[in-house]
Amino acid sequence: MKLVLDAAAGDFGLSPNIEGAIQAANELGVQLLLVGPAAEVSSQLNSRGVASGDQRFEVIDAPDVIGMGEDPVAACRAKPRSSVMVSAELVASGRAEGLISVGNSGATMVAALWHLKRLPGVLRPAIAVAVPTERGMTLLLDGGANTECKPWHLLQFAVMGTIYAQRVMGVAKPKVGVLSVGEEDSKGNDLVREAIPLLRAAPVAFHGAVEGRDLAAGTVDVVVCDGFTGNIAVKLIEGTASAIFSFLKAEIHSGPLNKLGGLLLRGAFARLKKRMSYDEYGGAPLLGVGGTVIIAHGKSNAKAVANAIRTAKRLIETGVNEAIKSSIEQMKVNLESPKVQIS
Amino acid sequence: MKLVLDAAAGDFGLSPNIEGAIQAANELGVQLLLVGPAAEVSSQLNSRGVASGDQRFEVIDAPDVIGMGEDPVAACRAKPRSSVMVSAELVASGRAEGLISVGNSGATMVAALWHLKRLPGVLRPAIAVAVPTERGMTLLLDGGANTECKPWHLLQFAVMGTIYAQRVMGVAKPKVGVLSVGEEDSKGNDLVREAIPLLRAAPVAFHGAVEGRDLAAGTVDVVVCDGFTGNIAVKLIEGTASAIFSFLKAEIHSGPLNKLGGLLLRGAFARLKKRMSYDEYGGAPLLGVGGTVIIAHGKSNAKAVANAIRTAKRLIETGVNEAIKSSIEQMKVNLESPKVQIS
Repeated sequence: MKLVLDAAAGDFGLSPNIEGAIQAANELGVQLLLVGPAAEVSSQLNSRGVASGDQRFEVIDAPDVIGMGEDPVAACRAKPRSSVMVSAELVASGRAEGLISVGNSGATMVAALWHLKRLPGVLRPAIAVAVPTERGMTLLLDGGANTECKPWHLLQFAVMGTIYAQRVMGVAKPKVGVLSVGEEDSKGNDLVREAIPLLRAAPVAFHGAVEGRDLAAGTVDVVVCDGFTGNIAVKLIEGTASAIFSFLKAEIHSGPLNKLGGLLLRGAFARLKKRMSYDEYGGAPLLGVGGTVIIAHGKSNAKAVANAIRTAKRLIETGVNEAIKSSIEQMKVNLESPKVQIS
Repeated sequence: MKLVLDAAAGDFGLSPNIEGAIQAANELGVQLLLVGPAAEVSSQLNSRGVASGDQRFEVIDAPDVIGMGEDPVAACRAKPRSSVMVSAELVASGRAEGLISVGNSGATMVAALWHLKRLPGVLRPAIAVAVPTERGMTLLLDGGANTECKPWHLLQFAVMGTIYAQRVMGVAKPKVGVLSVGEEDSKGNDLVREAIPLLRAAPVAFHGAVEGRDLAAGTVDVVVCDGFTGNIAVKLIEGTASAIFSFLKAEIHSGPLNKLGGLLLRGAFARLKKRMSYDEYGGAPLLGVGGTVIIAHGKSNAKAVANAIRTAKRLIETGVNEAIKSSIEQMKVNLESPKVQIS
């Protein structure tokens, strides 16, 4: 399997990308197209002991890079030879099956839509983020691709999220909730109240509305919401965990007995940190585009990059996009034909 | 100072309310009107050693109570003699200066608006919730009173939140942020993008847009958002902390060395729990109504009830409502007169 890695992007530049690519090639047996300034990419490969003729890696030159702070649309327009635009083009042309980027997530979305378009019938692609919960992981979508949504967008998110949770996360019958301010159908904002009847009639295991507390508790497997709320939720979970870690760290360093306590619980804290950490998740797929696209955290380390590559591979192997295409197509037929019920 | 406590409401009924009232009377020197089924309230007072003639407590009979799951508007209409409706009436008639309820927060809002109306010029009252952050506390509003908001509502929330943070939380010049998905003015949903210019021109120290991570980090003192997003955020912080505590608890009980570690860090965990706990906060004021109203968590214990009474007292002593009234009035004059600038 050939995958493209946008090697130049991200907060830390080439280094974690190249290292992650080598890890992934070793562990997953994938071939990687590494897109970035060719000379630097090659030199980074060599300095890490990769021989020049190693067939697992191909370096594709892209002189530009889109920075984390740049406006996505303007930057993609101005820099068609940026690493992310070239990466998306390689998937569109069939030279690779999927792309992974730890760069500016808005730019990755724009580049993906630009070159790969949407899957037929998909109205709005969504970022599916696996968030850590009390019971394990819950898939939240949209994690930030669409700040304004309509009820039928949430409906499609539920269908796409269900397919991803089944195939990639291995949940046989994922329970779907819509993020709201109370469990009753009558609560929530207009978007949620209008989405609920659509979700009840959808070909998913709809549980009902869930609150912020339920999301953290892991009451359901898939949570749908608009990308504004979803982005805030994802970052708030990350931020709250980080605030708690800072507090505990300061406490542990505040005296000899606390230090000893911290030492004894070192393993526990490491497991907690791992559980709450975005490095482990393997990035977030942009579901609904005409190709496999994984957006990973800008601060990804090599392990996080390798995990994101693993996720891309798994999406392709399990046929997520084909399943989304056929489910959305099916729903369209049902909606169009008055003889057929949606459920 | 006379305050009303909606003694019958909340997940745990009379017990924590009566106990909290006694604590508050002892510590704060306030007089309390206790509203609920009179015989039961009196018997609970007596069983806790309060003499029948104790001038600090007055029992007001209210035969009904509105349950946590009831529809607020329907329940307030159907039960004018419910403890929360009677409580609000006592404030409206001037028999008490403020009310505290740990009951159905929607019903408390409806009862407050019904009997106390809004302060002149206030378009939408908002729940101001103090959320725990890495640096201390950040005041978030709206915490759930208004699921749909307009930009000018966020503007008023910023003004009300600034006054509360100054007077009750003791922050000299509170920095105000608007909750969004990025720091740039161009990011966010329509509501946020339209609110930003209003906030920049407002008589508050506007910092700009803040993300979920910044809210958890405590970057600003006051965060404004619509009540849908705010309610989800508040419950997500609570839920994430609770998920982390569960994880740590399980880890600590998983072996003898971990148990010892947990024992040594007992103080640290207790401080963390206290910091993340809603019991400590003293409830959330409903700002913008024509009276002092404190909404506390349905699961409040006696200490949380006493803290909520303390908050009501502090709001009244520091003249929060008079200040809100005059600031909103001032903004109205500025907006109406083209000669005067808002800033």
